[in-house]
Amino acid sequence: MSTIAAVNTRNQFRGKVVGVKRSPVVSEVEIETGAGIVSAIVTSSSLEVLDLKLGDPVIALFKATEVLIAAVSND
Amino acid sequence: MSTIAAVNTRNQFRGKVVGVKRSPVVSEVEIETGAGIVSAIVTSSSLEVLDLKLGDPVIALFKATEVLIAAVSND
Amino acid sequence: MSTIAAVNTRNQFRGKVVGVKRSPVVSEVEIETGAGIVSAIVTSSSLEVLDLKLGDPVIALFKATEVLIAAVSND
Amino acid sequence: MSTIAAVNTRNQFRGKVVGVKRSPVVSEVEIETGAGIVSAIVTSSSLEVLDLKLGDPVIALFKATEVLIAAVSND
Amino acid sequence: MSTIAAVNTRNQFRGKVVGVKRSPVVSEVEIETGAGIVSAIVTSSSLEVLDLKLGDPVIALFKATEVLIAAVSND
Amino acid sequence: MSTIAAVNTRNQFRGKVVGVKRSPVVSEVEIETGAGIVSAIVTSSSLEVLDLKLGDPVIALFKATEVLIAAVSND
Repeated sequence: MSTIAAVNTRNQFRGKVVGVKRSPVVSEVEIETGAGIVSAIVTSSSLEVLDLKLGDPVIALFKATEVLIAAVSND
Repeated sequence: MSTIAAVNTRNQFRGKVVGVKRSPVVSEVEIETGAGIVSAIVTSSSLEVLDLKLGDPVIALFKATEVLIAAVSND
Repeated sequence: MSTIAAVNTRNQFRGKVVGVKRSPVVSEVEIETGAGIVSAIVTSSSLEVLDLKLGDPVIALFKATEVLIAAVSND
Repeated sequence: MSTIAAVNTRNQFRGKVVGVKRSPVVSEVEIETGAGIVSAIVTSSSLEVLDLKLGDPVIALFKATEVLIAAVSND
Repeated sequence: MSTIAAVNTRNQFRGKVVGVKRSPVVSEVEIETGAGIVSAIVTSSSLEVLDLKLGDPVIALFKATEVLIAAVSND
Repeated sequence: MSTIAAVNTRNQFRGKVVGVKRSPVVSEVEIETGAGIVSAIVTSSSLEVLDLKLGDPVIALFKATEVLIAAVSND
């Protein structure tokens, strides 16, 4: 696996694996972070390479271009 | 603007606007959430529609399919 | 679920649910809009939260950064 | 440019170019489709390759994995 | 299927299909390119439309906004 | 910067920086890989953190869910 020093995206949230739901092609991984659960859909093949287990420390990364912003109503 | 009741993605993080860097086509919005700053790149035209100002309460949304997972080395 | 007033993306297309294909991790939802069927892949867990049924009025949202443009040949 | 016969995504909407906002790195293209305006953010370098002009017939493409679904409130 | 002349994204890599892992909603397609295997997750419904078989010549396309950059450590 | 050991996505292509086009909010980085130039749009703020220079060894990463597949016509 590549020796990555750093990844450019600023959106990097530390957490730990608290759930993994597997299926043949894609799996859903739940990561508990400081702001709550982040859900990630990844290929099951890539998940095997990382060999993730419940409780493992991980980082959830996502690009700024993928983020939508919602204005909140004050009702 | 549409009267949205709820959006399907589970990745929704409440925060407030703490930075806006504008340019003609896209702008970067910084949102302070419970897990730190989320950076969002949005079209400047859509930003005008929301009329966001510093301190406004917002929600940062991103799909689970957009999240990568990094294993953390224990050095 | 959050009380969202508006979401920043300009690409918002009203329609109704005309198809749902479920599987354990992800599901495909077909939405009939003014320009034809929009297909969405969402996590099955998020779909349960919205409790969508055939015929429900919904909005399909997607960011401008996700759109590719194809030139059309005039043959 | 490659001779593409077909692209896999089902989300393909025909329309014509009705607006182009350029900046050095990215540009916003507005495409009038049967369901309204689709906004696309593309690299300015790729836009030059397509040599798009106002009124040109184009197709807006986006993957199903990029689509969010919002439930609509009946107020 | 549309008669596409060219697609705007610069990231287009020629290759051939060397693997297809199907499931009801999404499928993983492996494409052997000049830089190694590119993995694509597509809707199974869109895959049927293209009727891809092992060995077929294809092009893998992805937008510049979807690419992350990692600095590499020199250990 | 986080000490990342490995990132889950299988689409990781080694190369070197051969072009950087900067603007206030986003920048385009061109990476020469074994399959040709990969173009990446990243936030200018994240680019500063990585302090990339022409000739630097990097890895271009992109998720499988972001890849479209085009069938190629045999004209």
